[in-house]
Amino acid sequence: MGRQTEPQSLSSGYFAFAINRFPVDFFGTFWYKVPEEFLGINHSIYTMSLLVVGSIAYDTIETPMMRRENVLGGSAPFFAYAAGFFSPVRMVGVVGADWLPEYTEMLRKQGIDTAGIEIMPDGKTFRWSGKYHNDMNDRDTLETQLNVLGTFQPKLPEDFRRSQFVFLGNGAPSTGLAALDQIQGADLIVADTMNLWINTTRTDLDALLKRIDGLIINDSEAKMLTDEINTVTAARKVLTMGPKFVIVKKGEHGAMFVSEYETYTVPAFPMENVVDPTGAGDSFAGGLMGYIASQQGNLDGETIKNALVYGTIVASFGIEGFSFDRYKEINRTNIEERREAFREMTAF
Amino acid sequence: MGRQTEPQSLSSGYFAFAINRFPVDFFGTFWYKVPEEFLGINHSIYTMSLLVVGSIAYDTIETPMMRRENVLGGSAPFFAYAAGFFSPVRMVGVVGADWLPEYTEMLRKQGIDTAGIEIMPDGKTFRWSGKYHNDMNDRDTLETQLNVLGTFQPKLPEDFRRSQFVFLGNGAPSTGLAALDQIQGADLIVADTMNLWINTTRTDLDALLKRIDGLIINDSEAKMLTDEINTVTAARKVLTMGPKFVIVKKGEHGAMFVSEYETYTVPAFPMENVVDPTGAGDSFAGGLMGYIASQQGNLDGETIKNALVYGTIVASFGIEGFSFDRYKEINRTNIEERREAFREMTAF
Repeated sequence: MGRQTEPQSLSSGYFAFAINRFPVDFFGTFWYKVPEEFLGINHSIYTMSLLVVGSIAYDTIETPMMRRENVLGGSAPFFAYAAGFFSPVRMVGVVGADWLPEYTEMLRKQGIDTAGIEIMPDGKTFRWSGKYHNDMNDRDTLETQLNVLGTFQPKLPEDFRRSQFVFLGNGAPSTGLAALDQIQGADLIVADTMNLWINTTRTDLDALLKRIDGLIINDSEAKMLTDEINTVTAARKVLTMGPKFVIVKKGEHGAMFVSEYETYTVPAFPMENVVDPTGAGDSFAGGLMGYIASQQGNLDGETIKNALVYGTIVASFGIEGFSFDRYKEINRTNIEERREAFREMTAF
Repeated sequence: MGRQTEPQSLSSGYFAFAINRFPVDFFGTFWYKVPEEFLGINHSIYTMSLLVVGSIAYDTIETPMMRRENVLGGSAPFFAYAAGFFSPVRMVGVVGADWLPEYTEMLRKQGIDTAGIEIMPDGKTFRWSGKYHNDMNDRDTLETQLNVLGTFQPKLPEDFRRSQFVFLGNGAPSTGLAALDQIQGADLIVADTMNLWINTTRTDLDALLKRIDGLIINDSEAKMLTDEINTVTAARKVLTMGPKFVIVKKGEHGAMFVSEYETYTVPAFPMENVVDPTGAGDSFAGGLMGYIASQQGNLDGETIKNALVYGTIVASFGIEGFSFDRYKEINRTNIEERREAFREMTAF
């Protein structure tokens, strides 16, 4: 679908056929691109490649039950770890001298290529502090220290620039644009955004919307972005701003996929034991994109619905513990078991 | 399931086997009951029977788009009309001298036995007036005139007293209790309630909860009733108060069924064209109970999930128009078509 929004990728996309529903001239584009191969550009032709560019954070989190200081957070780690259950992932982000090598190791064990984590020896890692209300659905941001994130200029390693699937985690739209300037021939580009960027950097955000295939956004923020009061109407209006599809996250109420001709909806997995919802949206996006990547980017209805479900299921595990605590205990089998339980709860 | 909560119905329930998962001694109870038949009690042995006791109202409704005065509303008509798409319905309620015979006619055309509509020649029909906010999810009650509902003592026609399926629409718990005192051998008794009764008539409500099989309740009211902040936890706690199952209505976010060993969840049908949400909860309950009645009260997982879905689909039509406007335009085929579209949106 990247082909439709970025004309130049028509000629540079190797496996563009994977994302489209209609057969395209695979051999035509293939032979056209061969010379670049000989020039030494290193990109994997035969494996899917999923790239995430986003924030890396040390979070301090208060819930009605507990408080934890300086635990790993940020859109890129949550996305990458969740996607890693389904597909190899390439991660780009920036950290400070206080970065703990054990986190790099944890991400690598999950199949994440950490070559894109830039360590700024003179800076400190981005810090976010938040407090959850009683029902865990609302939270207040207590403090934000941008630190090295304040001057983040994403630098994609050479072999990351040819990634089939790209996710731009919630962050300044200018960061997303800077990343896209380094990316060629992606088949599917999806971005997340939030109220801060809608309110403060609307021009950049509008430019970004024109260069992505899909937007993942909270329901309240979809309404804010479009000045609409109905969620479905808001999603449809986003489609006029650039993206070919919108995925609306509704927290404990599930998620919805809307494109011009398709609507899919999935409830949340019913949860009692919500320990820490931080990163749930990024984990949802990670499970969703990781699954799509594992299906070679096939975007038929079945794949999209399963992607929504896998995103839902992976996120449901994540919020059962602080930071990555729960993720470290589970594997793909646990995910499949809960997916099956979810199917039993919903299939009619 | 009524058999479990009301021991006396063990012997008086004709088709108790229909609601249970295990075969019971049909012939034993059958022969035991024969003498009553000879005494002239008129109840249909071979057809399912669904009874609703609830309010009948003239509503005045303001939405951001429009205002309509004195249109038909109330829990009993919405429930009965919605259930009527699936099953014959018996309706009990009270109206005043201002009752329009055309409404009786409209209900009869939908297969509703209106013998239980009591007309008080000296009174006026209950009136409710409400105003919807921009997003149609919140509303303010502007005025309530109880009129004949204030002294409502439900009187069930003789042949209504042996109904297999009973729904007590939102109303004073004492009304529900008075109705139950007249009902024998019901297989399934379900009630709705709301914040007003939780706050003002808790003793009656607690007594009612002990005499019903299922409670249908909004998510916010489930939390209020149980002093819990998590929807699933709240639903589980309701199970300790009497009901064997709880159905939590979440408005535009769908619904959830919770019993001791089962959880089912269904998203809402994605809607853009919400004209008037009044009665959506009663219509949801009507579609749900009407479908269960049409399945002879079989309460296996498939039936429950389909009941949630039919409730959802019927209610989605109702809110597309004021009062019963949209219902009068549709039939079972429209419902089946939308159900199939919903399946396409959700099945994975």
